[in-house]
Amino acid sequence: MLVTLRDSPADAEIISHKLLIRGGFIKRVSGGIYAYMPLMWRVLKKITAIVQEEMDAKGALQTLLPQLHPSELWIKSGRWKGYTAGEGIMFHLKDRQGKEIGLGPTHEEVITKITGEMLNSYKQLPINIYQIQTKFRDEIRPRFGLMRSREFIMKDAYSFHSCEKDLKQTYEEMNDAYKRIFSRSGLKTVAVDADSGAIGGAASQEFMVTAEAGEDLLLISSDGKYAANQEKAISIPQEAIPLKHEKSFILETPNQKTIEDLCTKNKFNPSQIVKVLLFLAILENGEKQPILISIRGDQELNEVKLANVLGTFLEQPILDIRPITKDQSDAEKLSDIPFGYIGPDLKDSVLNNTNSWNKNFIRLADYTASKLENFICGSNAINKHRCSIDWNELGGIPKVSDLRKAIAGDKSIHDSTKIIRECRGIEVGHIFQLGQKYSRALNSNFTNEKGLLESFWMGCYGIGISRMAQAAIEQNHDEEGIKWPISIAPFEIIVIIANIQNELQKKLGEAVYKKLLDYGLDVLLDDRDERAGVKFKDSDLIGIPWRLVIGRDASSGKVEIRKRSRKESEVLEVEAAIEKISEDIFSERKLFERKPL
Amino acid sequence: MLVTLRDSPADAEIISHKLLIRGGFIKRVSGGIYAYMPLMWRVLKKITAIVQEEMDAKGALQTLLPQLHPSELWIKSGRWKGYTAGEGIMFHLKDRQGKEIGLGPTHEEVITKITGEMLNSYKQLPINIYQIQTKFRDEIRPRFGLMRSREFIMKDAYSFHSCEKDLKQTYEEMNDAYKRIFSRSGLKTVAVDADSGAIGGAASQEFMVTAEAGEDLLLISSDGKYAANQEKAISIPQEAIPLKHEKSFILETPNQKTIEDLCTKNKFNPSQIVKVLLFLAILENGEKQPILISIRGDQELNEVKLANVLGTFLEQPILDIRPITKDQSDAEKLSDIPFGYIGPDLKDSVLNNTNSWNKNFIRLADYTASKLENFICGSNAINKHRCSIDWNELGGIPKVSDLRKAIAGDKSIHDSTKIIRECRGIEVGHIFQLGQKYSRALNSNFTNEKGLLESFWMGCYGIGISRMAQAAIEQNHDEEGIKWPISIAPFEIIVIIANIQNELQKKLGEAVYKKLLDYGLDVLLDDRDERAGVKFKDSDLIGIPWRLVIGRDASSGKVEIRKRSRKESEVLEVEAAIEKISEDIFSERKLFERKPL
Repeated sequence: MLVTLRDSPADAEIISHKLLIRGGFIKRVSGGIYAYMPLMWRVLKKITAIVQEEMDAKGALQTLLPQLHPSELWIKSGRWKGYTAGEGIMFHLKDRQGKEIGLGPTHEEVITKITGEMLNSYKQLPINIYQIQTKFRDEIRPRFGLMRSREFIMKDAYSFHSCEKDLKQTYEEMNDAYKRIFSRSGLKTVAVDADSGAIGGAASQEFMVTAEAGEDLLLISSDGKYAANQEKAISIPQEAIPLKHEKSFILETPNQKTIEDLCTKNKFNPSQIVKVLLFLAILENGEKQPILISIRGDQELNEVKLANVLGTFLEQPILDIRPITKDQSDAEKLSDIPFGYIGPDLKDSVLNNTNSWNKNFIRLADYTASKLENFICGSNAINKHRCSIDWNELGGIPKVSDLRKAIAGDKSIHDSTKIIRECRGIEVGHIFQLGQKYSRALNSNFTNEKGLLESFWMGCYGIGISRMAQAAIEQNHDEEGIKWPISIAPFEIIVIIANIQNELQKKLGEAVYKKLLDYGLDVLLDDRDERAGVKFKDSDLIGIPWRLVIGRDASSGKVEIRKRSRKESEVLEVEAAIEKISEDIFSERKLFERKPL
Repeated sequence: MLVTLRDSPADAEIISHKLLIRGGFIKRVSGGIYAYMPLMWRVLKKITAIVQEEMDAKGALQTLLPQLHPSELWIKSGRWKGYTAGEGIMFHLKDRQGKEIGLGPTHEEVITKITGEMLNSYKQLPINIYQIQTKFRDEIRPRFGLMRSREFIMKDAYSFHSCEKDLKQTYEEMNDAYKRIFSRSGLKTVAVDADSGAIGGAASQEFMVTAEAGEDLLLISSDGKYAANQEKAISIPQEAIPLKHEKSFILETPNQKTIEDLCTKNKFNPSQIVKVLLFLAILENGEKQPILISIRGDQELNEVKLANVLGTFLEQPILDIRPITKDQSDAEKLSDIPFGYIGPDLKDSVLNNTNSWNKNFIRLADYTASKLENFICGSNAINKHRCSIDWNELGGIPKVSDLRKAIAGDKSIHDSTKIIRECRGIEVGHIFQLGQKYSRALNSNFTNEKGLLESFWMGCYGIGISRMAQAAIEQNHDEEGIKWPISIAPFEIIVIIANIQNELQKKLGEAVYKKLLDYGLDVLLDDRDERAGVKFKDSDLIGIPWRLVIGRDASSGKVEIRKRSRKESEVLEVEAAIEKISEDIFSERKLFERKPL
């Protein structure tokens, strides 16, 4: 079933998405919902085999867990509301008995329950359980084909340990397995420190396929020793330019609501200003909490860090967090908020009229703001700023955290002579040290060596299988189409019979096809009744590593061969062509085999 | 992860369910929702490999289709209401955009849409597309473990053809593939004529694992040439005993509401009576239709046949059909219905008061009733029957169909000297000739040889993969546990180190384990720190075909071996034991290999 399209689909924004559709690898059924067609299934099967081999080599055991998750389990872990009412990423339904069920986006709850019921003793530990399965996420804006789809194939593994040390050891082994998996699949990846997000836990690391189309921004030190997702990255910012020390005073700043206006009109540097941001957080218990954040004027707020700091401080998940707009503030009848002129000491009394929000601000400061000795900031009155003010005059420094976005040009924390650079990446793997978060919540215990009940120490380890396939295309394509790495190509070689009406070509083509199969090669025969040009274009588009064409030279027993990665083709005797191709494929295969340590 | 249970779960009614749970093969997560644990996964993987090999050998192409189905597709095919509001077997939900989505129980709609969009010409046909995937059914009463669960693994295939003849050829090839698949998996199956149910189409055949615990009743002629599911089975019933011809008269039959009472009190034979049944059908268009069915007194109504006849007659799916109770009739204020004394000519006027039902009966007769020349039937007045009446006196024969249940003791239609017998079966496969039902509904066309648009001719072919695994246990177990056929056993051999504290045993055990692996055998090492007796019991329970025990004789280089299917064990030198086991396993493997035709 080799069916290709001439035109790219209208909704495809990135090249890998276009090529998957045009090559007939995937077929859209609904928004963010695709069928994996036969060519694609072969790619997925090859990736899956590599993943299984490396997981098995680490002693992990394969299972298959349910996709339907009873709500009770997610209520116990404290994630039901966040995943349904909150961010709402989990599809959920009521069954015929009226029970609520979620469609699994991840399986910590299910496996923690199972392990708690099946394992009793430290003697049965450690254990690492994995599955390869379709997962579901109700993306509000599905896009980029398989990158952000609503159904996708994941490998997820969960390890259980009697102590943290043992967990760390398996975490390192998974790190090793992941590097092997991506490299054997022909992907260039970088491992970065990552935010653990809704999964939680102490430490986590993402594996990123570097590509322009990546949704994630990565920050990497010039020596490569520090690498992190911007969501998580920490760095040393540029020094602030000191402000002259003088007695604080009020400056008239009519219509200077932005840092830029304020600096241009008054010759300030943004690093001399304390910018104040107003956010509203929706908490899991339903409360709506206004937040006041002070940050240095030249810095950007990292909202992921903000949500993490807030969640830890309030000891509950933050379902949503976003800036308070003028419209929202008006709707709550908070007419006194001086947008553009807010100072860190904005009074709680501005919240007096609200009916649905909490009436006290949580006040936070990024350390870039807290470190300023004297600075400029809003005066809480329209068209006026305060200059050369210090924190004492404002009644002290709010709770200080790291809330800023690290950016290119910053200095690396491991060595301040190394400068941070940016690149983009596609997340294909993520490993977590979960600790006891889920085992405690779900009361999932074992008897330790002392005979006491203890909660399991857990890790979890994910790989986006379908996303890997698409990411491989981002890294391996040209203007004609895909250039699959041989280890995950749907076929290793395509045999094209140029003119299927020509009996000689047809006969020779079929004989060559059979011979290549006998050699143990993975061969596709293109014997469609199409023009030769169409077949050549298609073979480039679908990206099979080797092409063998039976054309006019068939009468003299010659064929044309070409490697997808090179421009030149060669005309050879049939036997020589088969020898050359098979030798090349066997040696390429070797490069991607599992290697001993 | 070898974790077994001593006690059977309380909700397990059949032996295979008990053994799956006790052996740690599956773990219940919620009603009808199970995790497949590592041992089970190995069984499923082996079955899957056999299925793939046989499907690939027939040229079928593997894909993976979405599990989330947009409602539009099912509305187009006319199945949305029946699968959600009607029988309600399809889980369904609204996504964050408010769109309705069903969780796929079957994929005719999805694949018909895809094929219609991707294929254009008869030159691209035939094509057979399959997938192996978890399916969903919101069973109102999940039971029997994996037999009637809410998540289960299916292989489903869909073939597309340019004509009916070609469809029939692929149908026959699938029939052949299915026989090979079940036999290579060690299952004894019988192929039976089947009702096509909600899938529809012209012809269908089920593959049944014969087992006492089966939910289906099968009717098979004594020569085996006719076999059908009772839902579908037709047969020649016993002849009626003629009633004396006389002028019809009214017989007083006080409190003789049942056939049995009527016969006992008046010395009638049940075959001399026309029994009248009152049913209410809920149609897809929302109408509630009362039905009056006449059938010979010694016969039982087949409700599947009834629903099919009615659906064809009314040209729409029947969402529900069940007997009208006295309470229902009272609720509709139909106080005149003489339950126990109803005749085929019950007047429509009894329906006058209803507000929600149609006011005319649909009247049907089974051919056993229609053939009676004179008979006894209700008089539509309490405590009175009519005797020796004929159809003319009743205003003619209603619409005649085959509505009776075929039963053991009937004569076979292919040869009336052959008697029908009953047995029970577990459905593991079902193949259908769908014809153009879905392609017409979804406007899925190709250009035929004449250059005209034509709807695809379709077939579909299902196998219950997870159900096969459990059915294998129903056919292969004893009091100690499971006896897996070697081709689908989780391991071929288990090596038990009787006392893991004994260094000599441990060393020898690990050496033997390694050696067996080197032989290419599928080996499990039981080196748990448990009593030997526990390990022996577990190895019988989980049903590994061969057992090799390293015990006290380890010091003299001897081990004990036993085949699970036999009682006797043998003590042999290590080398001889390994030779014997590997020879046996290799020859058994041969029995289950794919064979040329």
